[in-house]
Amino acid sequence: MSESADISYDARTGTERARFPASTLAEVDAVVAAAATAAPLVAATPPTDRAAWLHAIADALEAPDTVARLVAAADAETALGEVRLSGEVARTANQLRFYAGVAAEGSYLAVTLDAADSTLAPPAPALARLRVPLGVVAVLGASNFPFAFGVLGNDTASALAAGCPVVAKAHPAHPETSRLLAEVAESALVAAGAPLGLFEIVSGFEAGAALVAAPAVSAVAFTGSQRGGMALWRLAAEREVVIPVYAEMGTVNPAVVTVLGAELRAEEIAAGYVGSFTLGMGQFCTKPGLLLAPVGYDLPRLVAEALAAARPQGWLLTEGIASAYAAGVGELHRAGAAPLTEVTGGDAGWSAAPLALTVPAAALTSTSRLTEECFGPVGLVTEYADRAERDAIIGTLQGTLAASIMSGGDADPEVADLLTALTPLAGRVAVNDWPTGVAFRWAQQHGGPWPSTTVPAATSVGAAALDRFTRPVAYQSVPDAALPAPLQGANPWRLPRRIDGVWTPA
Amino acid sequence: MSESADISYDARTGTERARFPASTLAEVDAVVAAAATAAPLVAATPPTDRAAWLHAIADALEAPDTVARLVAAADAETALGEVRLSGEVARTANQLRFYAGVAAEGSYLAVTLDAADSTLAPPAPALARLRVPLGVVAVLGASNFPFAFGVLGNDTASALAAGCPVVAKAHPAHPETSRLLAEVAESALVAAGAPLGLFEIVSGFEAGAALVAAPAVSAVAFTGSQRGGMALWRLAAEREVVIPVYAEMGTVNPAVVTVLGAELRAEEIAAGYVGSFTLGMGQFCTKPGLLLAPVGYDLPRLVAEALAAARPQGWLLTEGIASAYAAGVGELHRAGAAPLTEVTGGDAGWSAAPLALTVPAAALTSTSRLTEECFGPVGLVTEYADRAERDAIIGTLQGTLAASIMSGGDADPEVADLLTALTPLAGRVAVNDWPTGVAFRWAQQHGGPWPSTTVPAATSVGAAALDRFTRPVAYQSVPDAALPAPLQGANPWRLPRRIDGVWTPA
Repeated sequence: MSESADISYDARTGTERARFPASTLAEVDAVVAAAATAAPLVAATPPTDRAAWLHAIADALEAPDTVARLVAAADAETALGEVRLSGEVARTANQLRFYAGVAAEGSYLAVTLDAADSTLAPPAPALARLRVPLGVVAVLGASNFPFAFGVLGNDTASALAAGCPVVAKAHPAHPETSRLLAEVAESALVAAGAPLGLFEIVSGFEAGAALVAAPAVSAVAFTGSQRGGMALWRLAAEREVVIPVYAEMGTVNPAVVTVLGAELRAEEIAAGYVGSFTLGMGQFCTKPGLLLAPVGYDLPRLVAEALAAARPQGWLLTEGIASAYAAGVGELHRAGAAPLTEVTGGDAGWSAAPLALTVPAAALTSTSRLTEECFGPVGLVTEYADRAERDAIIGTLQGTLAASIMSGGDADPEVADLLTALTPLAGRVAVNDWPTGVAFRWAQQHGGPWPSTTVPAATSVGAAALDRFTRPVAYQSVPDAALPAPLQGANPWRLPRRIDGVWTPA
Repeated sequence: MSESADISYDARTGTERARFPASTLAEVDAVVAAAATAAPLVAATPPTDRAAWLHAIADALEAPDTVARLVAAADAETALGEVRLSGEVARTANQLRFYAGVAAEGSYLAVTLDAADSTLAPPAPALARLRVPLGVVAVLGASNFPFAFGVLGNDTASALAAGCPVVAKAHPAHPETSRLLAEVAESALVAAGAPLGLFEIVSGFEAGAALVAAPAVSAVAFTGSQRGGMALWRLAAEREVVIPVYAEMGTVNPAVVTVLGAELRAEEIAAGYVGSFTLGMGQFCTKPGLLLAPVGYDLPRLVAEALAAARPQGWLLTEGIASAYAAGVGELHRAGAAPLTEVTGGDAGWSAAPLALTVPAAALTSTSRLTEECFGPVGLVTEYADRAERDAIIGTLQGTLAASIMSGGDADPEVADLLTALTPLAGRVAVNDWPTGVAFRWAQQHGGPWPSTTVPAATSVGAAALDRFTRPVAYQSVPDAALPAPLQGANPWRLPRRIDGVWTPA
């Protein structure tokens, strides 16, 4: 394993920038052992103290010279551009602060107290329940958001907030960025007085597999491809003690145009669709890969014209993604998609050509390649003849992270009906918003039915992201003084609680 | 499949009482299709209306002639006795009412609303999130609680409460009881105006496998053996669309006696232990299979004397359980356990001999048969030399549903320390209570780390049991009138909600 290394490439030129040796198995073991030692200390720390650690990382990330170093490395490695990347650093810092706030608010602990009741038959004992941290979490982040879904992204932030040490794997698409982020976090945590072992990274493919197999690792969070997520899920299922794998994977994210929407604003919708499926060179797990539009409003032509006018240019993240994109586009063609128009890409580095395709409704079957994700800047457009055909197409689609409805306004009668049709498919349904933005808020759900995620009840963004890294424990007839602090009658952590079935603020 | 049948035996004599033909695959398909048709209707029904359906079943169960018929059938099939069984019918009715109340209270929907915020960068859209029912749930209940964990038990009640139609499998250990329960529920639901297909049963081993494989089934709840639960979990993992399997399986449920506890009340603890491990002939998933006691207080002898004095008598539930018990006791002997005393069983039907064994601490390793469940009336006693040996033994134990601490009272200094040691192992930790009772309350947790359950974050008893059958969906920028009713601004379902991060009562 010492022979392998993560190679940092310049995405724009394809030239090698640096090599980072892979972690040895002994190194992985040592990092996991340190995290396991930290776990009970972290779990016993009040969430307000953990929130301070997250704020320390966030503040360190936003130091101007740090931002400059991070953005320079990430821009070379990903070609996503300085504007997007500096915005993403700011978002990442704010995410860390958001999860800190969720932890400090304390309702994620779900403290629930039932007094003993001797009037019941049989008499009920006193019960006190809370969610406890699972222990060490392995985080395998995404290629496409080096900051927001990287080694300090949503998964790491929510796991730390929930009281779990994190061992993250550096992403091979941006190894230098990963390493810089880890250095920032580790020194901020030391300065903030956090326990050693709270956060660490490892490098290399085999180190990732070793992490998932390590007995002291209690959960895995992954953002990436279907193939990668499924491989980790299978690996975890073979452990002696099976652990949850929260894999959030790429999906088709269908967008449906209503008749009134097409009538009132077909051009705007076409331009918006092109903007969304080419944003970040189409490298979003929420990219709208399929536009369903009513026949008779010329959406295919309008999308082609919008793409030709916009002429988006750029590079893909890695050589592997570039070649998978080329192969995927070939598969779409062979499955019955016809080109509407193509924007010629450059030929340096991992450049690629954005592309709009049209697909006859009849070609969309549940087993077709057309109803699977193609990662990269390609968008399909299909026209439906009537509501029955529209619903038949929706019935062929797989579980997806997000779905969108492009309507003709608040009075559009199709919207409620489409919400009902799309809800069983999706973790999030948007109206007149493209799905590519995923706000980190209390009400966010970034997940979705199989195979968009391995655990459809989980979310990887938003307040409920913490729940993935905890499990409930009930204490029965335990004397108050012996209970964990969050359950004690005096409420020393000042938590909101459910007492005898009634929600009681802190 | 039409050749096979569930055979109702008299457990006390082993004689055949009746045969119930297994469902054909066509029958399973028809039942699942009816449930799938009901699913959207049930999901759209306000939880207060669903609560009325559950109350209708509960009331029907408690009609005196119904109780008499149910108890007579169950007593013949299980030999659990009329007192226990009529209490269990009452408990089952009250469970149905409890889950009805949890549904009506509405916080299980986790309604969360975030207003749009244009001051953020990028601007945040309006988000509205709630938990939606998964769809049809397959319930495979337990042999040992024909009512409380049977076809109308906790799993069915919580799935119906959460808005999911249920297809339950009749248990082959009590097929007549299962059928009677289904008849009671079906006629009560018709009278209450519930949709057709809301609840139905199927019979036979192959029907159970067909249920788990059926594309329209969205989740599986199982209570029973490790082997059965793991088989269903593997079956579901092979589906094209993998679904969650909530398997709650038998475990060792260790009980630890503190030094002060042994000093003050060794005899009482020994008698309590015997009472708990022989209750219901040891056929509880929460049976305390292992007592860890400090050396020097004669706990092995006291347990032997208590067993000899109590002389519990009875029958096991099935011929299969009786032969597995005999085989399991043999395995415990070969793994190093020595008999303390045995109560001779009868020889009619599925009778069995309650048994106390002693095991040297050194024999308890993580790979030993001694640290696995043996279903039936056998209890192991191990003496530990000191705290280090006590903790070493705890370190060898598997994940378990419950653990108990037998202390010397509220001032016992060992309790807090033992709670910390036992929490990573267990879903519930009791002090001076034996673990065999599982109250259905808001704060209950009936689950536990792998391999006690397949989903350690889930509970099969208590208010949070509903969560297993829902997943969250977020709606983004959806006009108020098009939102599902629970998310609308006027709050027509009068739900508690989290609004802009702040919990707001109904």
